[in-house]
Amino acid sequence: MTLPPLLQRYRSRIERGLREGLQGETRVAEMLRYHLGIENGDDDGAASMGKLLRPSLVLFTAEQLGEAPDHALPAAIGLELIHNFSLIHDDIQDHDETRRGRPTVWCRYGVAQAINAGDAMQVLAVRHALDAGEAAAGILLEATWEMIEGQSLDLALEGRPASADAYLSMIDRKTGALLRCALRLGGTLAGAEPEVLRALAAAGTELGRAFQIHDDLLGIWGNGATTGKPQGSDIRRKKRTLPIAVAFARADDDRRRLLDRIYAAPEIPEADVDWIIDLMDRLEVRGAVERMVSEHLDRAGNELSRVPFSASGRDEMDGLIAYLARRDR
Amino acid sequence: MTLPPLLQRYRSRIERGLREGLQGETRVAEMLRYHLGIENGDDDGAASMGKLLRPSLVLFTAEQLGEAPDHALPAAIGLELIHNFSLIHDDIQDHDETRRGRPTVWCRYGVAQAINAGDAMQVLAVRHALDAGEAAAGILLEATWEMIEGQSLDLALEGRPASADAYLSMIDRKTGALLRCALRLGGTLAGAEPEVLRALAAAGTELGRAFQIHDDLLGIWGNGATTGKPQGSDIRRKKRTLPIAVAFARADDDRRRLLDRIYAAPEIPEADVDWIIDLMDRLEVRGAVERMVSEHLDRAGNELSRVPFSASGRDEMDGLIAYLARRDR
Repeated sequence: MTLPPLLQRYRSRIERGLREGLQGETRVAEMLRYHLGIENGDDDGAASMGKLLRPSLVLFTAEQLGEAPDHALPAAIGLELIHNFSLIHDDIQDHDETRRGRPTVWCRYGVAQAINAGDAMQVLAVRHALDAGEAAAGILLEATWEMIEGQSLDLALEGRPASADAYLSMIDRKTGALLRCALRLGGTLAGAEPEVLRALAAAGTELGRAFQIHDDLLGIWGNGATTGKPQGSDIRRKKRTLPIAVAFARADDDRRRLLDRIYAAPEIPEADVDWIIDLMDRLEVRGAVERMVSEHLDRAGNELSRVPFSASGRDEMDGLIAYLARRDR
Repeated sequence: MTLPPLLQRYRSRIERGLREGLQGETRVAEMLRYHLGIENGDDDGAASMGKLLRPSLVLFTAEQLGEAPDHALPAAIGLELIHNFSLIHDDIQDHDETRRGRPTVWCRYGVAQAINAGDAMQVLAVRHALDAGEAAAGILLEATWEMIEGQSLDLALEGRPASADAYLSMIDRKTGALLRCALRLGGTLAGAEPEVLRALAAAGTELGRAFQIHDDLLGIWGNGATTGKPQGSDIRRKKRTLPIAVAFARADDDRRRLLDRIYAAPEIPEADVDWIIDLMDRLEVRGAVERMVSEHLDRAGNELSRVPFSASGRDEMDGLIAYLARRDR
């Protein structure tokens, strides 16, 4: 699936910006390059840097609202580095062994060094953001704090299935914080009015929900070859995702009792994974969850209609939203 | 052993500053309060906040060079929080179960939540430093990066005994970075001249060496009741410390071969710990290492003689240096 124009336009300068800060000879710099895909370890070929959604949104929003993208670049790089610091540490916390088809940092360098790598990535992120000024650094730090609180909430729920409400309040922090931050950074650096900043922040929250819920769909029904994870993997790993919350909510008492029993065990055997996917089919969970993705994307679109984008900018944003609803990885 | 005046003077306002930023109801805020000793978990009595050496040095230096300590307080708090972020993550990396006589954060809340706690502490630290301005935040971030590189070096050496040179280059980052930062922050906020800042930075490096080497002494010959660790604990844990580096350097070939053999095994049995302590006695390691502490403290004093402290300020600094050479925890 090709990337929409909004994710292509700024890509090369973001990649360049990420590379430039990471030329050192130390183990720490090497780990950061490896994680970001700047350096591919001993494998052949170049690794992917991912979609670069967050920094693209910073630059797009800034440019649309009248600021030169190059001026917003340090903040965009800082935000992408914060996202990546969180991925390095999340992979340790979730015992995830692969990311973007390669061994995670802790798998390759050990847990202790991977903790350092995440710590260093956070430092580097804020140093970049500071180059865009105190306001940008302050917004990024606020979002980072929120994101960490979201991750902590997620861990605190571990094992227990969350209600849809608890789930949303968790992902509004864990995923929403950085998407809100992307739009707020772009708007703030362009000197947008308070009501525009409010609409941008609200759109960020909705985009975060849509993005995460779509990720949750891929974590159960995604194609392993594209997503890098096997079908049903989020069930196997007992991740708290929206499809599970919906399945719990829709199941009758006896089936909910069985689900409880399955989730109380230390591991979920394959036969139970299959049964849960089958139950989700019978309860029409997938359709319900897909509708939620569309709903949150619509709301994001509504909020963004109050932001003075150009006509072509609006088209690009619509293209991004359509892509986020369809993406297969 | 009572604290010298320099460590008493600013203590209450630093403690207040640390408390003020941490009033939230979330798990993250609770973990940070627990680690800092603001909240003692389910034990009785208040926990200790430690010596508060680094923030005291920020405020002392700023005040001596003509800046109001209250103006430097956010930077001092930021530095102390960076120190504590590193302690939370170091305890995970080193599998340390107690700190200041209480369970470490990872022991109490689990590794995953403790990673979050350290991450959040880092964010909070920089938010504080930013209140003291961009320059202060920049200096703190630079020092944090260096410290993380030092920790990474330390881990990379793990198991292998380091030479004295490799050891010094590691602790100049791991321990030295934040002590240098303390003096530089104080000087920078007071608008000190470049040559004064250079002397402060050099003094910080020397203080860092003296401080860490003294810690190393306590980790082998310290009194368990005071330090919170049993005699010989750094040997048992195969930590790379200066006494071990000196023992390796002074041992004859056969004894060095035996040391290598002992350090190559996954664990060091008690009988070998005792043999190593005995060998260190025979090689007069303790005296040699104590002389190095004095030497680095003398050099710190020399560097500081080029900083325009008041007469009473100089007395206080001498009192601190004497304390650092004698402290038993």
